[in-house]
Amino acid sequence: MRAHHDGSELYVSSQSPALGETVSLFVRVPAGTRATRIHLRRLSDGEPVFTSAVVDRTDRAGDVWWRAEMPLRNPVTPYRFLVRTSQGVRWLTGAGLTPYDVPDATDFRIVAHPPPPAWACDAVVYQIFPDRFAKSFEKELPAWATGAAWGTPSARGPNATKVLYGGDLDGIMQRLDHIATLGANTLYLTPFFPGRSNHRYDASSFDRVDPLLGGDEALTRLTRAVHDRGWRLLGDLTTNHTGAAHPWFTDERGFYYFKNTGGYECWLGHPSLPKLNWGSPELRHRFRAVAQRWLVDPGLDGWRIDVANMTGRRGAEDWTHEVATLLRKAVHEVRPDGLLIAEHAHDATADLDRDGWHGTMNYAGFTRPVWSWLRADNLPFDDFLGVPVEVPHRDAAQTVAAMSAFSAQMSWRSSTTSWQMLGSHDTARIRTVVGDAARQEVAAGLLLTLPGTPMIFAGDEFGLTGSTNEAARQPMPWGSSPSRAFAAYQALIRLRRDQPALRSGGLRWVHAEGDSLVFLRESARQTLLVLARRRAGEPLKLTGLPGNTSWENLYGGGKPLYTETDGSTAIDGYGPAFQVWQADI
Amino acid sequence: MRAHHDGSELYVSSQSPALGETVSLFVRVPAGTRATRIHLRRLSDGEPVFTSAVVDRTDRAGDVWWRAEMPLRNPVTPYRFLVRTSQGVRWLTGAGLTPYDVPDATDFRIVAHPPPPAWACDAVVYQIFPDRFAKSFEKELPAWATGAAWGTPSARGPNATKVLYGGDLDGIMQRLDHIATLGANTLYLTPFFPGRSNHRYDASSFDRVDPLLGGDEALTRLTRAVHDRGWRLLGDLTTNHTGAAHPWFTDERGFYYFKNTGGYECWLGHPSLPKLNWGSPELRHRFRAVAQRWLVDPGLDGWRIDVANMTGRRGAEDWTHEVATLLRKAVHEVRPDGLLIAEHAHDATADLDRDGWHGTMNYAGFTRPVWSWLRADNLPFDDFLGVPVEVPHRDAAQTVAAMSAFSAQMSWRSSTTSWQMLGSHDTARIRTVVGDAARQEVAAGLLLTLPGTPMIFAGDEFGLTGSTNEAARQPMPWGSSPSRAFAAYQALIRLRRDQPALRSGGLRWVHAEGDSLVFLRESARQTLLVLARRRAGEPLKLTGLPGNTSWENLYGGGKPLYTETDGSTAIDGYGPAFQVWQADI
Repeated sequence: MRAHHDGSELYVSSQSPALGETVSLFVRVPAGTRATRIHLRRLSDGEPVFTSAVVDRTDRAGDVWWRAEMPLRNPVTPYRFLVRTSQGVRWLTGAGLTPYDVPDATDFRIVAHPPPPAWACDAVVYQIFPDRFAKSFEKELPAWATGAAWGTPSARGPNATKVLYGGDLDGIMQRLDHIATLGANTLYLTPFFPGRSNHRYDASSFDRVDPLLGGDEALTRLTRAVHDRGWRLLGDLTTNHTGAAHPWFTDERGFYYFKNTGGYECWLGHPSLPKLNWGSPELRHRFRAVAQRWLVDPGLDGWRIDVANMTGRRGAEDWTHEVATLLRKAVHEVRPDGLLIAEHAHDATADLDRDGWHGTMNYAGFTRPVWSWLRADNLPFDDFLGVPVEVPHRDAAQTVAAMSAFSAQMSWRSSTTSWQMLGSHDTARIRTVVGDAARQEVAAGLLLTLPGTPMIFAGDEFGLTGSTNEAARQPMPWGSSPSRAFAAYQALIRLRRDQPALRSGGLRWVHAEGDSLVFLRESARQTLLVLARRRAGEPLKLTGLPGNTSWENLYGGGKPLYTETDGSTAIDGYGPAFQVWQADI
Repeated sequence: MRAHHDGSELYVSSQSPALGETVSLFVRVPAGTRATRIHLRRLSDGEPVFTSAVVDRTDRAGDVWWRAEMPLRNPVTPYRFLVRTSQGVRWLTGAGLTPYDVPDATDFRIVAHPPPPAWACDAVVYQIFPDRFAKSFEKELPAWATGAAWGTPSARGPNATKVLYGGDLDGIMQRLDHIATLGANTLYLTPFFPGRSNHRYDASSFDRVDPLLGGDEALTRLTRAVHDRGWRLLGDLTTNHTGAAHPWFTDERGFYYFKNTGGYECWLGHPSLPKLNWGSPELRHRFRAVAQRWLVDPGLDGWRIDVANMTGRRGAEDWTHEVATLLRKAVHEVRPDGLLIAEHAHDATADLDRDGWHGTMNYAGFTRPVWSWLRADNLPFDDFLGVPVEVPHRDAAQTVAAMSAFSAQMSWRSSTTSWQMLGSHDTARIRTVVGDAARQEVAAGLLLTLPGTPMIFAGDEFGLTGSTNEAARQPMPWGSSPSRAFAAYQALIRLRRDQPALRSGGLRWVHAEGDSLVFLRESARQTLLVLARRRAGEPLKLTGLPGNTSWENLYGGGKPLYTETDGSTAIDGYGPAFQVWQADI
């Protein structure tokens, strides 16, 4: 093990500090390594300021904890450590220890902007695509739609978005017991506003719930039912565009980008999705009201923001950070515990920690790394979440490198509030990506034990398949027999709920090579060791773990861990495997 | 060699593109490597867009050049390449080839903001600290000052800034022949405004030249003389603070941060340097006028901006980018060919490419790496340009890693417009850092041959020493005999002037291990091979260079390069050495 710091409560004295507060920062120097001096470097009004850290304590394992005090002069304070050992001088940043100078991009950072709500840290999010979840009544189809019978394969091709299965909000309410059994505690619904498609990202109104979903009353009933269970409910707001059927598009030309040459700006060239012009003060005013109205009545707990990466960006204009701050403040004003999560297709790090989005949908730093490590040998599709290449084969070292590269460029709190996903309504199904139930369990294990908020796309727990987003949007197979996947998700969610270190602990990587990933999640009172292995192989010998420790298996079984004569800890080579142990310390 | 792209004219069809323009981008796949497909990924309104590159041509060396067209929809367009070879899929970004996903921070980027002036690309900057350069007349000392005789060692300690040697602007004019002989073509003067210190960063006025320097008339004479030689002249503007003696400090309280509790914000706690409040519209107005006035009369060619990294930053306020844009526009308005260079103490990359500063003083990406590679075994000082550690010993690989880490996070044009320095009035002297003339020549060689604008602190060409900034500010030793350093700088500057590839060529690293650095500077018509070696060692065998090539030595002599039977190119192990060869292709 090497000198370590992260943003968790083990290493930072406050997770929600205010501007002007002083926080204590800790660096852990593992037994067997000796640091002769550690400096904290923080930026203060744009200038590096160095202060000496002092030894705070030595713990029972022999790790030495250094402490430095840091006043928070700016809303975001980037910081790093200069660690001097007999091997020389190293920078310790979010990118780990480097023996040469590195730019500030991977500095740790503490954010004094208003924090995400406390409940977000304990959320397990369950994503519902309403048309495909559950149906409570027969609808009269609108002219644009084609009906499909529940249980028939989901349509593909150009008209796929016009096919309605007829799921609705009361249908969801009837299935809350299923979600309760699974263990999720936060529902995220893709849009419930009316549109001319089954996905409803082409809103024709932000003022009412689609009658096809049951209308406003159904949302009120669902919200109450969700809150009665102590859960949270999130909506989905499209800030980049509306549907062409939205009355704004006819009545409020200033809300859009009409071109002098005729035509208008639209999302990826789709005329049905005209792009909003956030340069318009009136649009800002009206959208602010929309964002607030649904949090007040029926009382949603926040929003997922669609295409946040494009919102407000057009040519020489870039209002994105202003939009994010406007919405964050709007939400906070009516719901101090409201949550705001940004969809982002590639790298959201430059849009986070700016008093806007609380987190992102972490395709870049989680989904892609997991897919490329756990992918099946043969795949029935050939794109990598929008990248025009088959899902690459990457080993564990590359997987951790990618995850770390993204998490290093955001604050710990933005990273942990971001949504980790194995897939969504926009992707292939994880079961199809990894190929079998055993590997899906490994994927789900990572989802529920790594830092970040787990988000599960409804149906994954049935082991649903699908090699495109359309194919993945099959109706829920209610009545099918319980799957291995369901039991795994259920047990992993329970594990996360029962083990605080999985929700708020720090992260130290122990091993990442080829087929195996091993890491520690640690809080002040708990040390958990997590192993993910994509296939069977040689037993692992891990060095640097707390010695003379007995490890209790909490998940996945397998042979007991044992300590070798050289003090290393050995794990057998069973696989695919996902196992969690707790140290008796 | 590996697949390569950089921002130079070999790989990008326009260095100063306008918004809306389409540029051609090239990726070079060296002979011996086969790419089966290359995609360009650009960000457009915040969304990744992929297009296929096509094979443009195969050159005589067998390298295959792929081409992709890129429309510039946004003022800054980040882009990267997805390169597929038989070894798998790699991202090609400013950080090189990576086999896993990396954040956008190292994406290449093209900037459509108004470009830096064309002359900056050919500038060799000579920095003058006026009090220590040359004296043309005897002064009556002000009350705050103590006099010192030319040639006596510069003072240290708390009152060091109060010691005047009496250098002045006419003194500089009398020594222009020296600078001409050396070969520099751009003069940068630290502040000429009056203050209460020999460095004058505590301006008591921005409206007149310090009479101790000869007053306004002397600056007019100097400007004319400099322009008569076809050179450029840059001033030094302190935007973060003024001196406490500035009349604004008495008359314009809104320009500063006076605290309710009494006292005021000042630079690093020095009461003599009250910090400016850029939230004040009136300050912006007045400062804009200052920035313009001196460019109009006597006609300076631009500004170096002092403490740009702190300017406009204070607590929750951050006006830095607004200040930079305001000044860039102000300069441009009166001098379309004006230059604006920002001092930055650590990592300027986040402040560049934003329609503000044209470049930075590149301590982070050049000075520190060179110091830590070439440092003497024993040093008479123990800080690393403000980092509280002795200058580290780093090998060539770490040196290149550090240089590349910083250059990867700015556009090619910001990187090449930035000032490379071996030292300045704020640092120890390079001769003291490296210990001897031979290594200083290696350092100067890197300064004059790597991308970026070389800046030489007056006196380095005499081999002056000094282990602190104060000690380094010795008066120029006029009349001393010509030094080896002078001849080296002179020859290297001439080399840079005569070889276009050194000013505008691309950069490919060939070798970076331990004691040796080897790189190529290449333009459409020229291939230069550069070797820097810090000590003697084994001969090097370089693979991947154009085969069957004869190499003409342009600098440094040494044994002729020869091609081994296996096709590699061998260089003998002489050192310390700095050598440049031109390929006959």
